[in-house]
Amino acid sequence: MEIKTIKLDFPEEANVILGQTHFIKTAEDLYEIMVSSVPGMKFGIAFNEASGPCLVRAEGNDSKLKSLAISNIKDIGAGHAFIVIIENAFPINVLNAIKQCPEVCCIFCATANPVEVIVAETEQGRGIIGVIDGSIPRGIEKDEDVEKRKRFLRTINYKL
Amino acid sequence: MEIKTIKLDFPEEANVILGQTHFIKTAEDLYEIMVSSVPGMKFGIAFNEASGPCLVRAEGNDSKLKSLAISNIKDIGAGHAFIVIIENAFPINVLNAIKQCPEVCCIFCATANPVEVIVAETEQGRGIIGVIDGSIPRGIEKDEDVEKRKRFLRTINYKL
Amino acid sequence: MEIKTIKLDFPEEANVILGQTHFIKTAEDLYEIMVSSVPGMKFGIAFNEASGPCLVRAEGNDSKLKSLAISNIKDIGAGHAFIVIIENAFPINVLNAIKQCPEVCCIFCATANPVEVIVAETEQGRGIIGVIDGSIPRGIEKDEDVEKRKRFLRTINYKL
Amino acid sequence: MEIKTIKLDFPEEANVILGQTHFIKTAEDLYEIMVSSVPGMKFGIAFNEASGPCLVRAEGNDSKLKSLAISNIKDIGAGHAFIVIIENAFPINVLNAIKQCPEVCCIFCATANPVEVIVAETEQGRGIIGVIDGSIPRGIEKDEDVEKRKRFLRTINYKL
Amino acid sequence: MEIKTIKLDFPEEANVILGQTHFIKTAEDLYEIMVSSVPGMKFGIAFNEASGPCLVRAEGNDSKLKSLAISNIKDIGAGHAFIVIIENAFPINVLNAIKQCPEVCCIFCATANPVEVIVAETEQGRGIIGVIDGSIPRGIEKDEDVEKRKRFLRTINYKL
Amino acid sequence: MEIKTIKLDFPEEANVILGQTHFIKTAEDLYEIMVSSVPGMKFGIAFNEASGPCLVRAEGNDSKLKSLAISNIKDIGAGHAFIVIIENAFPINVLNAIKQCPEVCCIFCATANPVEVIVAETEQGRGIIGVIDGSIPRGIEKDEDVEKRKRFLRTINYKL
Repeated sequence: MEIKTIKLDFPEEANVILGQTHFIKTAEDLYEIMVSSVPGMKFGIAFNEASGPCLVRAEGNDSKLKSLAISNIKDIGAGHAFIVIIENAFPINVLNAIKQCPEVCCIFCATANPVEVIVAETEQGRGIIGVIDGSIPRGIEKDEDVEKRKRFLRTINYKL
Repeated sequence: MEIKTIKLDFPEEANVILGQTHFIKTAEDLYEIMVSSVPGMKFGIAFNEASGPCLVRAEGNDSKLKSLAISNIKDIGAGHAFIVIIENAFPINVLNAIKQCPEVCCIFCATANPVEVIVAETEQGRGIIGVIDGSIPRGIEKDEDVEKRKRFLRTINYKL
Repeated sequence: MEIKTIKLDFPEEANVILGQTHFIKTAEDLYEIMVSSVPGMKFGIAFNEASGPCLVRAEGNDSKLKSLAISNIKDIGAGHAFIVIIENAFPINVLNAIKQCPEVCCIFCATANPVEVIVAETEQGRGIIGVIDGSIPRGIEKDEDVEKRKRFLRTINYKL
Repeated sequence: MEIKTIKLDFPEEANVILGQTHFIKTAEDLYEIMVSSVPGMKFGIAFNEASGPCLVRAEGNDSKLKSLAISNIKDIGAGHAFIVIIENAFPINVLNAIKQCPEVCCIFCATANPVEVIVAETEQGRGIIGVIDGSIPRGIEKDEDVEKRKRFLRTINYKL
Repeated sequence: MEIKTIKLDFPEEANVILGQTHFIKTAEDLYEIMVSSVPGMKFGIAFNEASGPCLVRAEGNDSKLKSLAISNIKDIGAGHAFIVIIENAFPINVLNAIKQCPEVCCIFCATANPVEVIVAETEQGRGIIGVIDGSIPRGIEKDEDVEKRKRFLRTINYKL
Repeated sequence: MEIKTIKLDFPEEANVILGQTHFIKTAEDLYEIMVSSVPGMKFGIAFNEASGPCLVRAEGNDSKLKSLAISNIKDIGAGHAFIVIIENAFPINVLNAIKQCPEVCCIFCATANPVEVIVAETEQGRGIIGVIDGSIPRGIEKDEDVEKRKRFLRTINYKL
């Protein structure tokens, strides 16, 4: 078994969601979840069919993000893995709906940070074993950082 | 720490769901979720109790699938891991209910494909770090494959 | 890439929940989920901010558990990982609410057992790839163990 | 304002689910929820579009149940009300999935009992204000009835 | 058809949840949901079986609250209606779990206020058509009331 | 007991969601759910506190919609009832998140249609017993209407 890391490639202003699913219906179902969640959001979806023709299956409403979703998930190569790349919206807007999609097993990460996907490869195929999402913590928040954190959420109107 | 792969052993017409849980109530709760989801479905459930007597705990309504669930999860050996093996139904019929079981932490995979479970072993015990679910993608779907995919879902009456 | 194991440090009577999230709103949201779930429960929450200042962000209603949450998640060092440490309540009381938090991606484990967290480290950062939750199974439950398991759940009034 | 009762008309072996929704996507979404829930179940769905052409919208996989769904919901006449009539499965198998349908507001009842729907009518239109689901209680269960109730659930294998 | 109001009778320090369900499994399922939600909470549950023997079915872990649940739901008399009466905990602690119970259709109210239940009665039986939960609003909050409201939630530690 | 109908007053391009909740935390919680769901959406929220000062409690990010929410829910006058008025987004974007809010009991309707709310009034207070959402159905869809319905959902890109 070989373990390798694959760096995700997506625009700086975009967010990615990486997960595990089952069944070819995922492509249409995730598409519908996305369009039903945020009007005007742009996104691409792709997942690795893991039996039969074994094709990367993709949908989306933006050709650039769809192509990126395809190339990233193909590079990862893990059976039944899926990726969603989003612009003009955030994971927080769609994550619960994706988690409740009846085909979705789990979500590895949802982030705008640089991501390295850790993949195990055997003779049979590949599987995601983890993700490096952004950077290591450099310290612990102090009282003034707590204040700033709370103020920030209130400045962007996410909390009252 | 040693990393090994364990091949799941289940009938070709069956599906498996592999996840992480906590608490001994899981065996009865997953049993109830299964019988409440699809009338006539056959299934076996097993999970690894990870403290005290450390026994494989199992339930089900089919002795063959229950035995298989036990042998697979025992081979995996990861504390609090669980497996469900299903016949006459599909993961899509039960996955959301299992995800909402109050003891269930996460689902690693749900599939009818060959599965290799990647397990880390330390002196303390074992943990699942990933799964190889089926095969690596061999290509990207073309327009005609998209057509076929959509037609397939409509032929089996999953989409209108 | 280096793989290491980090032993969680928490009181014997406490439980831990370990997961992956995104977004700095997690600290306040998990705090609210906890106080809304069980009156009188004590808890500490911490997660690793993975961009910008990269600080460990923490909340809670018990200073000892909050400190422990901070030191454990700092040791793990994985970007966007979070930990909750609980006293006077159990994961089963809060797990579904945490799974439905709009920022939460997945739960790695929920347990009162000894836990080793398996972490991958690259130049970029760290990611959780799995957990060792308690011990390896030592056997398979027999009819009398099934009886005992069911009786136990009824003795503690969890089942009728 | 006039208040009237409308008796639902459905086969003795069938179950009905009556609810409130919004948006024309409901017909296809409820169809997909039903086929994804229980393989082999028969059902009809209908709901009252409440603006524009104001047509009864219907889907299903059984023409008799679809016709019945149409005639019942047309009789009720309440805007955005929907009905599902099921054979070979039970409300318990599908109710959570229907409750999570993004268009569904609420469920008035799910039952195999005789149902009278109480409808208020104004000049503008109609609305469901309640349901009579089966009969009035005739007494309070005694210890032997509790025993019988528990035994019944265990005889049909719904509880262990 | 006759419409009447029935005043709920429960202790001042208690809360009630009133809803619509289906199926006799509700009594055990709601019991399990309650005990799994808040350690040490006291509660009584009762619901009106609406076919066959038509008995009030009840569970709970406190005989006084169970008796009260029975007498209230019997007075209401609506088929498949259920009531939960809680002490030492609040509806916010259990409401989402009850809403996700696979038999539960809807929740009419959750409150510690005086409640009048509005019931319609026909020859067939009874149905809940609404609830009067507490009092009519006497005014609109001003800036100082908003301040007080926010401070109150922070004083009881429900918000940060 | 008196039964009256109250016509909701909201802009033509807006949508309303009307429901039942409990607890003063609702105002902030619904606010957070709205801002976390759709970036750029405008909304007003109001609900009727039903004990103590009995004030209409309100939040929002648009003063016009907030004022409208207040005046509508005050007119309804039912204890613990709430209303959300939305612009630049649709109920389908937020309804599941609102249904999962831990204080929310049920949703009466979600619609852009004219709405009459049916309210029962006793000496104690008021309760919503139903809604007239839009118009009565004028007919049953024919094959060509089904075609148009499906095409419409695909033209607005909600289905593939």
